[in-house]
Amino acid sequence: MSHSPGSHGLLDLYGCPPELLRNEGYLKTALEHTAHHIGATVLESRFHTFGGEGGVTGVLLLAESHLSIHTWPEHGFAAIDIFLCGHLRPEAAKETLQHALEAEHSVWQTHPRGSEL
Amino acid sequence: MSHSPGSHGLLDLYGCPPELLRNEGYLKTALEHTAHHIGATVLESRFHTFGGEGGVTGVLLLAESHLSIHTWPEHGFAAIDIFLCGHLRPEAAKETLQHALEAEHSVWQTHPRGSEL
Repeated sequence: MSHSPGSHGLLDLYGCPPELLRNEGYLKTALEHTAHHIGATVLESRFHTFGGEGGVTGVLLLAESHLSIHTWPEHGFAAIDIFLCGHLRPEAAKETLQHALEAEHSVWQTHPRGSEL
Repeated sequence: MSHSPGSHGLLDLYGCPPELLRNEGYLKTALEHTAHHIGATVLESRFHTFGGEGGVTGVLLLAESHLSIHTWPEHGFAAIDIFLCGHLRPEAAKETLQHALEAEHSVWQTHPRGSEL
């Protein structure tokens, strides 16, 4: 695995306050803080608010891959993915994001990428 | 699973020509064609070329979530992820992308998101 380009973490957050899941500015800041916390470098960010009762979708392009979020306020649910290459570990982002989004419960999976290299 | 927000596909492509993996315009077009092929709606796109011998990183924000790519030309490797909510299936993107990037071999995994809803 020493040549693996990275590790991809999938974080499902349940029981989040709907008002947070519609707040693009809050979510963007939370992701940027998380990227800083785990030592990643943000190249660019793009976010989109669906409006009304809808959620937010957004991504940070990182020098080390990406950090994305998609929210479903009607379910109190957010799906986040954290793909990091090099020595950075996506696990380091899990607690920060769960706390920032005030999730009651989370499900975390990680998958190596490029493991056949 | 009827309430699951979506399905997340992770596609690892091996044996791709390095010149394709450094060609931001080609990769952007390939992802846009793929999004069109699977019936997704592109909201925005952001790409970044690392330059020199480095690769490209990029993402399409979709109305149905996202499609991202990160390339490692030195390994002939590309890591793609396809997260689609609603009735769209990420499997439909696999063959299109493998063909476009002239991959010799691929590894495909899918994971339901929000499966506890």
